[in-house]
Amino acid sequence: MTGSLDSPACRQVLRELVADDRLARAAWSRLAEPGEDAATALVAEWGAGPAIDVLAGSDRREHAGYRGRLVAADPRPELDLLHRMGGRLVCPGDDEWPAGLDVLAKPPFALRVRGALDLAQACTRSVAVVGSRMATPYGEHVTAELADGVVSRGFTVVSGAAFGIDAAAHRAALRARGLTVAVLAGGVDRSYPQAHEQLLREVIDLGVVMSEVPLGSVPMRHRFIERNRMIATMTLGTVVVEAEVRSGALSTARKAADNGRPVGVVPGPVTSPTSAGCHQALRDGYATVVTDAAEVAELVGRIGADAAPRPSGPAHAQWDELDDVARRVLEALPRSTGRPAEKVALVAGLGPEPTRAALGRLALLRLAERHGAGWRLMPRRKRAGP
Amino acid sequence: MTGSLDSPACRQVLRELVADDRLARAAWSRLAEPGEDAATALVAEWGAGPAIDVLAGSDRREHAGYRGRLVAADPRPELDLLHRMGGRLVCPGDDEWPAGLDVLAKPPFALRVRGALDLAQACTRSVAVVGSRMATPYGEHVTAELADGVVSRGFTVVSGAAFGIDAAAHRAALRARGLTVAVLAGGVDRSYPQAHEQLLREVIDLGVVMSEVPLGSVPMRHRFIERNRMIATMTLGTVVVEAEVRSGALSTARKAADNGRPVGVVPGPVTSPTSAGCHQALRDGYATVVTDAAEVAELVGRIGADAAPRPSGPAHAQWDELDDVARRVLEALPRSTGRPAEKVALVAGLGPEPTRAALGRLALLRLAERHGAGWRLMPRRKRAGP
Repeated sequence: MTGSLDSPACRQVLRELVADDRLARAAWSRLAEPGEDAATALVAEWGAGPAIDVLAGSDRREHAGYRGRLVAADPRPELDLLHRMGGRLVCPGDDEWPAGLDVLAKPPFALRVRGALDLAQACTRSVAVVGSRMATPYGEHVTAELADGVVSRGFTVVSGAAFGIDAAAHRAALRARGLTVAVLAGGVDRSYPQAHEQLLREVIDLGVVMSEVPLGSVPMRHRFIERNRMIATMTLGTVVVEAEVRSGALSTARKAADNGRPVGVVPGPVTSPTSAGCHQALRDGYATVVTDAAEVAELVGRIGADAAPRPSGPAHAQWDELDDVARRVLEALPRSTGRPAEKVALVAGLGPEPTRAALGRLALLRLAERHGAGWRLMPRRKRAGP
Repeated sequence: MTGSLDSPACRQVLRELVADDRLARAAWSRLAEPGEDAATALVAEWGAGPAIDVLAGSDRREHAGYRGRLVAADPRPELDLLHRMGGRLVCPGDDEWPAGLDVLAKPPFALRVRGALDLAQACTRSVAVVGSRMATPYGEHVTAELADGVVSRGFTVVSGAAFGIDAAAHRAALRARGLTVAVLAGGVDRSYPQAHEQLLREVIDLGVVMSEVPLGSVPMRHRFIERNRMIATMTLGTVVVEAEVRSGALSTARKAADNGRPVGVVPGPVTSPTSAGCHQALRDGYATVVTDAAEVAELVGRIGADAAPRPSGPAHAQWDELDDVARRVLEALPRSTGRPAEKVALVAGLGPEPTRAALGRLALLRLAERHGAGWRLMPRRKRAGP
């Protein structure tokens, strides 16, 4: 699609995007950066396809940037390339969509995914293991022990493929022939960092590499931050092994805690700057000390035991294990059209914070799902395990 | 005093003990081991002097051991020796008695004290720094930094003079010309461990060495445990630098927490067994992470700011800084005769646990004191600072 928006070719492409929700979602992730308000609002209000139409006719200033990119929005060449690489597009509502992402106020429009695993299944029993790029030998050693231990307990290790703790986590999971998911801030066709080209190839072979930005995208600061919010919510809990006081790993941990996920941190010497962020998280009160894989499993297992697939169990088994808040939220959900979270909170007689956290847990348990701009009960056909 | 209890000489000695509360208390610490129920009950019920009389006439089985030791109970030869060493006996009610000891269900009968400092004053702004005998170089380094830092903030460092963390804490305090108190499990005339003879001499020169057992007593397991309860309650808070999972330092920390004192622990590598107890205390939820002296000061300063001497401030300055529970407990205290803690709890409309903890804080603030088997308002003359 080249030339002006008004050319017949362009108008034809736009019509095709408007008519195809998945194509439109892929287009939106080419138009907008992850987590941008205006694009998120358009898609939430109109749906991805119609929002393209609205955008094309909009003269609002906050839409100008997106409009400027509309002529290059057609995602089909990129998706062809993705498919040729063995990859695929995963959209909300797809079986492979990780339910935990639905808890985000600004969920990704779509994911580019490469790898052998089913992403949603890999996330049903998963833990984020993240930390400093400047990891010490101590940190890398502990990371390897933890990742090996949680993998042997059936958890998927999710991380960001960065130097240091992230890489140690992926490597240990691969060594133990466990499942691992690398969530990238750039495109899934790019090895970032370059030195991890071989590591990422191995993750694709045995696990999943995913990103919400198009192929070819370079990682940028804000993309790392938005990437972290996915790691934090698509997993049952987050463990930080080493982290500086102001660090991406701590932002992941905070995001996980804000969304009702348990956060574990590994303590270390108080003389080590790469443990200072872990100790700060403890002092701030949103994290728990974890010293080995058994403690990690115990920490995230509070949710994990519920979230693990139960193909044979009756539906009320899960119900019995919900806490009171989650039950009230579940009872406040409609069956068909999504109800906004604030409305759910009102119906349940709860505050917005606990309601959002409970919705996140219920999404992980595949009992609730995002629908339009709101939430509804997970349709029965989707409820059973893999 | 030799020969049988019925000899005229013996009976004369017993009469003198009965008539002199301080002598009787010194005698009781020769008759009973620290924290023994039967002796504590006798002294609480009758007062130290009359309890000697009751004991001499008792045929109850739980008193038999004490009666057997009555012929050697006269503490005057021992106290003469103590005085010749420059030491002194300190009893409940003495100005030098550390108020924090009054919170103990089984407080010491009396203390043997050697050293330049006034013990009560040294404790008004004090922190226990304790830990493993098998300290690592990391632990000793951090201990020295912490002790130096809290001393420079005007805190007395209280510890147990053991190998490892304890010794590092005393040494750093001495090096910084700060105040330090060594609480021994054996007599104050004994250097235990032997290798710390020089260290203990320096503590006596610049601080205080104290014990609740008579001169000549050897340290024994249960004496260490009872010693720990004093360290835990005579200070504003306890910091554990390194500790094994089952360790004396952890028992001190737990005792401090049980008595409403803040507990800080220094994290360390999860690969180090001497940090495992610290991490356990965090996971058990009764301790806070501290990574430097400023955080220790902040932790114990919640009480410390109040407990520091304020010679010039009006009485209501302290009142303003009390929390609601402490105020209610204070209002429930009588002026004259002591009221049992359970009764205070009833009057204050509080549970026994928070009441006891508040009594401990009020004792540290010199607003309340033990009196007989109960508690009363600290008489006004004792209330002013140092």
